[in-house]
Amino acid sequence: MIKVALLGFGVVGSGCAEVLTQNKDLIKGKVGDDLEIKYILDLRDFPDSPFAQRVVHDFNVIVNDPEVAIVAEMMGGSHPAYEFTKACLEAGKSVVTSNKEVVANFGTELLALAEKHGVSYLFEASVGGGIPVLRSIYVDLASNRISEVNGILNGTTNYILTSMKQSGASFGDALKKAQELGYAEANPAADVEGLDAARKTAILCGLCFGKLVSPADIHTEGITAITGEDVAAAAELGYAIKLIGHADTKEGKIQALVSPRLVPLCNPLSGISDVFNGVLLKGDMVGEVMFYGPGAGKLPTASAVVGDIIDVAHGVVGGTVKRPYFENATAEDVADFGDYACARYFRFANTPDEVTEALGEQVQQIVTKSGYVAVITKAMSERKAVASVADKLCVLSCMRVL
Amino acid sequence: MIKVALLGFGVVGSGCAEVLTQNKDLIKGKVGDDLEIKYILDLRDFPDSPFAQRVVHDFNVIVNDPEVAIVAEMMGGSHPAYEFTKACLEAGKSVVTSNKEVVANFGTELLALAEKHGVSYLFEASVGGGIPVLRSIYVDLASNRISEVNGILNGTTNYILTSMKQSGASFGDALKKAQELGYAEANPAADVEGLDAARKTAILCGLCFGKLVSPADIHTEGITAITGEDVAAAAELGYAIKLIGHADTKEGKIQALVSPRLVPLCNPLSGISDVFNGVLLKGDMVGEVMFYGPGAGKLPTASAVVGDIIDVAHGVVGGTVKRPYFENATAEDVADFGDYACARYFRFANTPDEVTEALGEQVQQIVTKSGYVAVITKAMSERKAVASVADKLCVLSCMRVL
Repeated sequence: MIKVALLGFGVVGSGCAEVLTQNKDLIKGKVGDDLEIKYILDLRDFPDSPFAQRVVHDFNVIVNDPEVAIVAEMMGGSHPAYEFTKACLEAGKSVVTSNKEVVANFGTELLALAEKHGVSYLFEASVGGGIPVLRSIYVDLASNRISEVNGILNGTTNYILTSMKQSGASFGDALKKAQELGYAEANPAADVEGLDAARKTAILCGLCFGKLVSPADIHTEGITAITGEDVAAAAELGYAIKLIGHADTKEGKIQALVSPRLVPLCNPLSGISDVFNGVLLKGDMVGEVMFYGPGAGKLPTASAVVGDIIDVAHGVVGGTVKRPYFENATAEDVADFGDYACARYFRFANTPDEVTEALGEQVQQIVTKSGYVAVITKAMSERKAVASVADKLCVLSCMRVL
Repeated sequence: MIKVALLGFGVVGSGCAEVLTQNKDLIKGKVGDDLEIKYILDLRDFPDSPFAQRVVHDFNVIVNDPEVAIVAEMMGGSHPAYEFTKACLEAGKSVVTSNKEVVANFGTELLALAEKHGVSYLFEASVGGGIPVLRSIYVDLASNRISEVNGILNGTTNYILTSMKQSGASFGDALKKAQELGYAEANPAADVEGLDAARKTAILCGLCFGKLVSPADIHTEGITAITGEDVAAAAELGYAIKLIGHADTKEGKIQALVSPRLVPLCNPLSGISDVFNGVLLKGDMVGEVMFYGPGAGKLPTASAVVGDIIDVAHGVVGGTVKRPYFENATAEDVADFGDYACARYFRFANTPDEVTEALGEQVQQIVTKSGYVAVITKAMSERKAVASVADKLCVLSCMRVL
């Protein structure tokens, strides 16, 4: 019998209890032993829950119980989740988590602590919800040097962008609909401003390049400024607008950013709709692989948390094996954002002649509509993109192209 | 230093040597030790290869060398690959392979043998080439009861079907082009008749349902009878034709078949083009997840083989841990094929009136063209599908719908 404690009994925590209960026999068959939930830590009581008797309010009960071998942290937020995780690892308990905030900010320290104490710290659910992305990188694709990763990492914003495209709704109306459906929170800032995607991009940098880039060092733009005209112009040019977490390496330095981008329709990410997530990786040996599925939600996220619990229960990731493993990126590891180069989309309140005169050979595609001219340029750096239009043209909107 | 032997120095074998050499430092960083190719078994000599000195012609040199810890079998064909694998496992060496024929026919026996001898038998490369599919099922999705799997599992046929759709080419012309480009072999039967996809479907049954269904027990149809009219009619009805390896469970029994199917454009498998593969899984907790990427080719396949080598080198899958694990399906485990029910596509040389009179309310969609009427029916069993049209209508072609 392997004893498990759950920290947090919210959406993911209760999903985790449901997976462990509903598929108990299946999981026992795979682990070779029973997994039993001994404690559930939450501030609340759940008198009507079948788990009511296991709810505790004092974290010390869990950390001081030597029977608890595996702790699943699903509290969300940095504190006290970080402190609790640290204490569990120091007490010789393996920790699995869906908490991207903790992994993105403290992952390196916690992985090192896990190694020191001969236990595991796993966080498959922190990126892509139920989609098997992270372990695929650190196990299946371990023979590859990853050169680039692009992901639709936030279901809320993807739902809003899909809705804007399909119904012609404005950002505000699409957000409101997403809130009504429970896809967006009352305070949607972390989603629509791109912070959630930035945390996941930080974690992907850790696994793809071995260096955890701080979310604070990832240039992040949200989707709040996107208009119906942008969505329509992008479609006419042959693109879909997606919020993309992007990271690649250039001359040994990591370029990581989160921003809405025009994704060409031939790219499989362009077809990922609604709340679904997708991650497209380029490895030097495998080429391009993509993972697609539910990036959030109670049971999909819990599926990944319990997958990690089962992996720990196998005893296969503990000990001295450094999987997953990364270090913190230093200032040296991260490229100057001004050098980041890609093709650009602009929408101008100018005449086509004014645009072609100002941008010259930079123009790759141009569409003229009543009220604006939309353009796709050749690749230009952040610095040059600004310089090439400053003072010359009236920019209505501007986005990167993938 | 961990010593590795390669069995077979063809496309995948030489790719494996390339991955191990080119990313030597990267792999050492992950394993914590050097991986060295000590022997390469092949009937041929390779005097110009940097590995010339390691080529041996006698398998006994390898199996009798206690220094060799891991053997990568990339010979293809059942014999002597099966016998060599058996001998290596019995000698206490872990074996990894890309050989779907051996896994589909002898996988259960070889997994049991590996367990008995405390070593591993891994075969990630046998399904989906470089795409991380199998380990995702047996590790990441271990908390899920998988209810259904659908896969585009053969790159050659997907290239041919994509080519027929895009250029309007006939099957024969598209096959010829695929042969010219090296995507199809001179004798393309194993690909175009569906046998390769059936072997992979058998392996997916093993991992998804715990029961390896013999490829001989999987109803298998190829793509040779598909015409340009079918491709055009399918497009008009809103579908793409794909060769689909399908398996699900119904009342505890496995239904597995390989056949060309009309895939609705809203299904992400419909957009997978050219030689790419994709596998779409349904789990009771995670919902739908899809894996997409290069299903064949030298380096992608080698990427998966070396991923398995690294996993074994970590020592994480040996011992008594049964991962992956399955048993052979018995006759009891497999459903009667006559009961398999799905929607159907028919093309008839009849008038629309004759068709609607004969099929009545079974008709869901109908398209009339000069020379034929194309129809999508409601779900009907194999038995009923035959009965409903026999003697009544003149069938030009008939396919299942996904």
